[in-house]
Amino acid sequence: MFEKVLIANRGEIALRIIRTCRDLGVPTVAVYSTPDAEARFVRAADESVHIGPGAPSRSYLNIPNIIGAALRTGADAVHPGYGFLSEDPYFAEICADAGVTFIGPPPDVMENVGDKATARRLMTEAGLPLLPGTTEPVDSADSAEQIAREIGYPVIIKAAAGGGGRGITVVHRAEDLRDAYARTRAGAQAVFKNSAVYIERYLTRTRHIEIQVLCDDFGGAIHLGERDCSVQRRHQKLVEESPGPNISPELRERLGAAAVAGARAVGYRGAGTVEFLLETDPAAADTFWFMEMNARIQVEHPVTELVTGVDIVSEQLRVASGAPLSVKQEDVVVRGHAIECRINAEDPDRDFAPTPGLLENYRVPGGPWVRVDTDYVPGSRVSPYYDSMIGKLIVWGPDRATALDRARRALAEFDVSGPGVHTTIPLHQEILSHPEFTRTGVTTDFLERNFAL
Amino acid sequence: MFEKVLIANRGEIALRIIRTCRDLGVPTVAVYSTPDAEARFVRAADESVHIGPGAPSRSYLNIPNIIGAALRTGADAVHPGYGFLSEDPYFAEICADAGVTFIGPPPDVMENVGDKATARRLMTEAGLPLLPGTTEPVDSADSAEQIAREIGYPVIIKAAAGGGGRGITVVHRAEDLRDAYARTRAGAQAVFKNSAVYIERYLTRTRHIEIQVLCDDFGGAIHLGERDCSVQRRHQKLVEESPGPNISPELRERLGAAAVAGARAVGYRGAGTVEFLLETDPAAADTFWFMEMNARIQVEHPVTELVTGVDIVSEQLRVASGAPLSVKQEDVVVRGHAIECRINAEDPDRDFAPTPGLLENYRVPGGPWVRVDTDYVPGSRVSPYYDSMIGKLIVWGPDRATALDRARRALAEFDVSGPGVHTTIPLHQEILSHPEFTRTGVTTDFLERNFAL
Repeated sequence: MFEKVLIANRGEIALRIIRTCRDLGVPTVAVYSTPDAEARFVRAADESVHIGPGAPSRSYLNIPNIIGAALRTGADAVHPGYGFLSEDPYFAEICADAGVTFIGPPPDVMENVGDKATARRLMTEAGLPLLPGTTEPVDSADSAEQIAREIGYPVIIKAAAGGGGRGITVVHRAEDLRDAYARTRAGAQAVFKNSAVYIERYLTRTRHIEIQVLCDDFGGAIHLGERDCSVQRRHQKLVEESPGPNISPELRERLGAAAVAGARAVGYRGAGTVEFLLETDPAAADTFWFMEMNARIQVEHPVTELVTGVDIVSEQLRVASGAPLSVKQEDVVVRGHAIECRINAEDPDRDFAPTPGLLENYRVPGGPWVRVDTDYVPGSRVSPYYDSMIGKLIVWGPDRATALDRARRALAEFDVSGPGVHTTIPLHQEILSHPEFTRTGVTTDFLERNFAL
Repeated sequence: MFEKVLIANRGEIALRIIRTCRDLGVPTVAVYSTPDAEARFVRAADESVHIGPGAPSRSYLNIPNIIGAALRTGADAVHPGYGFLSEDPYFAEICADAGVTFIGPPPDVMENVGDKATARRLMTEAGLPLLPGTTEPVDSADSAEQIAREIGYPVIIKAAAGGGGRGITVVHRAEDLRDAYARTRAGAQAVFKNSAVYIERYLTRTRHIEIQVLCDDFGGAIHLGERDCSVQRRHQKLVEESPGPNISPELRERLGAAAVAGARAVGYRGAGTVEFLLETDPAAADTFWFMEMNARIQVEHPVTELVTGVDIVSEQLRVASGAPLSVKQEDVVVRGHAIECRINAEDPDRDFAPTPGLLENYRVPGGPWVRVDTDYVPGSRVSPYYDSMIGKLIVWGPDRATALDRARRALAEFDVSGPGVHTTIPLHQEILSHPEFTRTGVTTDFLERNFAL
């Protein structure tokens, strides 16, 4: 196991990683920006290093400062969490050059997986079902038009370097295509420094089902079942659960086998997620399509932890340190049902605009089968620099109905307030009480169709 | 299900019961003493009624005020929690007379179980193994001497109405017997208003193993496996775990079958616990003896909840409302390992003297598989009127070693301090790191043998 792990991240995920490191007896180093100086994750780590001001580019994306902190403190591994540098192959390479283990897949694998067009090509070769579309970047408006005509409207134009719902444009009519193509390219260049885009068919009324995979260097490659993350607003997940409602054991097995085959095909190592679109049209029942693979721990990993009992961060550390996975596929048993609500400091009535500010009150729920992953305490400030998520509520129940009861109760126990701060808690209460949601698995347009957002 | 449940208790167990009521959609009434007016459990309930000053006899043991609160608020059921009135058959009868369901076994069952001598007789008849001793109260010092001589020293003299480690005297030498007999009787009369005592052989080097049972009115009677509660100081439990270390599946089945047979024999209903002494002498390996049955929810019930996934309070409510248990014996699967530490505001270096006072800091641990049941918040006062337990830490892991790692980490995350307040947290850290404890199941003399308390 490692001598010391530096966590190149902040907030709840930094705290969550520190906790597993402590469980394993591994000392930790937190790195932090100026506004995070008093944060819980900084105090929870054994050591901490200031790496710059609030702007992410100058701190949590500041590779020289982070590598410097690792070298200075003698950390022999870096856990990147999610977001920030977690899927940056360049950062992983620099870690390797500095003699520090990057806790994640090898840089070339991350590069292949991160380039959505390359990932599509590799997954096709591995036999995974892909939506009609391109497996190479589309390099002119003319070919974009021709491809869209061939696969049929609506289509979706995606930045090859995008992810997490960014760099995506849906095009319903041929006359909008050229404009959307140009806009998506320009946006991708601006945000990701890479203008490559690809095109695929756009399905409405699909479910977002993803499979958690774990791979080691000894041929071990397993999956921990699925998560249903269909409750989204503009491709950003708000509610996730495991198992997925109405996913048959046979479909679960097919999804799992496809995800493991995909992970093996790209030479994956560590924890990753293979995302699929699942059709809900009865004529195409149980048909699924590969969407993308995420080469990091996901925000929603706790729902999988609660139903499988597997500590995903612990497995990441094991694998990165050269040990085999601690679980075999036949040991993975999904028990009960888990639901996660992402509590954001946002105003759903103002198009989910973040509402930074002081959290005068911040009391979280507790009790049986309630887990809250958060870095916030009363008096914390929601910083405009960072993600507006101020906590994750995760509950478990022996069945979905019980888990929903507990989630609603726990949401009601939150006591979060501060001048100007809004949260998504009331929206979560509405979602979790909506008959369409409680009855069955919803499609990704559920929020837009049912809530005047 | 009930229209409204009044919780005739305080602190963490009141809050824990309120949470399950909320999960089930049942409104709750809290009753509280003057010093508890600002407590969390009072605010968490839908309604609350002040029932008297701090002294328990005038509030949480004040039957007229509690029954009055139930009638006034329209509560159709009372949950007594543990301690206070939870094992008082007279209170259960008055509830019935007032038309309010007492959430627990019928009064006569409670009476039979609560009288330790009667319980011994009933359990013998049900075929449970009993330590040599009396099944009727011993009514003179002469017969006490004769009985002790017959069964052999050391013996233990127990108040028939005792429980929870109170009203117990161990006698090692014949010359001490008469005196001990007189003292135990006098103490029993003073504390329990019942001077009856019984005598049984006293075993050293035994383990305290107890079985959680659940019974309904439809013939359903199941057990949820065992808890090992051998870490005790003066018969007060400090650490509990489930499953018990080194309990073979065969022994578990025998213990479970005995507990269910005993529960059936006394006509039990609801959640109860059958306590056994397990011999550790290799010559008597896997030999166990019935000790007593507790007719209430136990402080340590969460470890069973975490390994079985069964909400014990929910089953209590179901059964009391006339529904069958929601689980069958064949559905009960013990998964992983759970450990509970009772965090007390006591000074282990001063013979565990309670240290009441203001908790200026009170931060509890969190994260994956960590549950903290507590009613305390920063600024709470530990009242001299009540139990000194200020929180229960319960952790789960896929195996005992992982659970221990998590428990030690979580203990380190506690931040509890205030003028004059000591806690058992440092002692728990020592216990959980002690090679005898980590290696195997310890005997009930573990604390005395290993710690200079």
